[in-house]
Amino acid sequence: LQQPIAVFDSGLGGLSVVRALRDALPAEDLVYFGDTARVPYGIKSRRTVVRFAVEDARFLLQFDPKMIVAACNTASAVALDVLERELDVPIVGVVRPGARAAVAQADGRPIAVLGTEATISSNAYVHAIQALRPQAEVVGRACPLFVPLVEEGRAASDPIVRLAAADYLACLRDRVGVVVLGCTHYPLLREAIAEAVGSVAIIESGHETARVVRETLDAAGRLSAPARTGSMRFFASDNPARFRRIGARFLGCDLDDVQLVEFDHPIADIVADAPA
Amino acid sequence: LQQPIAVFDSGLGGLSVVRALRDALPAEDLVYFGDTARVPYGIKSRRTVVRFAVEDARFLLQFDPKMIVAACNTASAVALDVLERELDVPIVGVVRPGARAAVAQADGRPIAVLGTEATISSNAYVHAIQALRPQAEVVGRACPLFVPLVEEGRAASDPIVRLAAADYLACLRDRVGVVVLGCTHYPLLREAIAEAVGSVAIIESGHETARVVRETLDAAGRLSAPARTGSMRFFASDNPARFRRIGARFLGCDLDDVQLVEFDHPIADIVADAPA
Repeated sequence: LQQPIAVFDSGLGGLSVVRALRDALPAEDLVYFGDTARVPYGIKSRRTVVRFAVEDARFLLQFDPKMIVAACNTASAVALDVLERELDVPIVGVVRPGARAAVAQADGRPIAVLGTEATISSNAYVHAIQALRPQAEVVGRACPLFVPLVEEGRAASDPIVRLAAADYLACLRDRVGVVVLGCTHYPLLREAIAEAVGSVAIIESGHETARVVRETLDAAGRLSAPARTGSMRFFASDNPARFRRIGARFLGCDLDDVQLVEFDHPIADIVADAPA
Repeated sequence: LQQPIAVFDSGLGGLSVVRALRDALPAEDLVYFGDTARVPYGIKSRRTVVRFAVEDARFLLQFDPKMIVAACNTASAVALDVLERELDVPIVGVVRPGARAAVAQADGRPIAVLGTEATISSNAYVHAIQALRPQAEVVGRACPLFVPLVEEGRAASDPIVRLAAADYLACLRDRVGVVVLGCTHYPLLREAIAEAVGSVAIIESGHETARVVRETLDAAGRLSAPARTGSMRFFASDNPARFRRIGARFLGCDLDDVQLVEFDHPIADIVADAPA
């Protein structure tokens, strides 16, 4: 039996990481859980994000994964240490891979990191970058409107997107050598971000994470036979119809089936009685 | 002992309803619960919102309230029937009061309702308005960016706010007689909304709700003695610091104390061990 790679995220943004994993590792089975009942994590406290992330990862253990990927930047930023300690499965977050690529490409110039409020205020990218290059100069910039703009279906060419990108990022123009997209939604606005920051290298943490996952499995001799085509399964804690509709833009193809998962809950009996 | 009026909301937006209650009923004690761990409700399914709303209201029962106000438009739109059936306390939502005022002021002209995805797609305002005036013409318009714009601290004069308001609302200009602000965050963008829709009456559902609460308590002889000054207590399920910081703009004054509430949760033991 093939062991899958299991991926979780606060919602549907992590499907951009699934897309990168699919491209890098087409033979692997993938199982995805999106916590759409409690999305977003990016405005919540460390304590609560840790709690949710552990619950998400525990849900995925039932699939006996060979590895768990925390596709959510916020969860990777604040909960990875707890996940590593609590789970008996290799776990990879998106922050360290993004940081590694940023250091490699910055060539000593300042690095900008874009992300949610929680990711930026955690300073997780700063710590991960400076662990690799202690003297690196890192500027964090929270861009809270980018997630709702993407979820509403707006493209990089939308006037509101371009105005928001200019508002957040004009201060970085010509001042940094690398920009890290430290949120799974931001790659969908990549062109607007590039326009606002000027000509600098842009790093997608999800893309770098897929590379790290492949290297890690390869080094451990745990890659699946390359001839096969992996499967994909999707689970969400709420609103699978919305997940399917918006998620297709992140995944780059249709999501055939999304299953609703409900965590145990003391008032489940009442909800079951609710009129449809 | 005074029984308080208890108010719940998905997050901090309901503090605009508390402000209206405070103005209308200064002698009443108020207890507020904001479910900031699971905010927002507006992108979630009916089933999940019902579940959360019942849990929120149950938390408030411990204060022996004389009435519970569902300040959240989304919860009022999709969960009020279940709340009325499950709870043994009078409950008031914000949808019917907003609908009543809209019908009174529309004078036969079309009515526009602005709200979250969930509120608009529930058609709760349409049903509430047409229950009062069956032939009323109602246009619903979801404005998903307004909540994150307000939470980011942007004012009605902000260029992004004005562009978003024009984008959502230009289609309503000169076509409706009344606009209902069917979300607790929207009153903070009232001037931008007014600019976009042109000269029409604007109704704040929270404001109308405070009026209904006063009428209902008065009719039942349950108003507190007018000479006293009511107290206010605030509870949130996550991030009380953010609640206090952003909430002050909704309440119109500082929030002295916000207490963190945690619902029972199977992984509480792990979180307790997490490094600070």
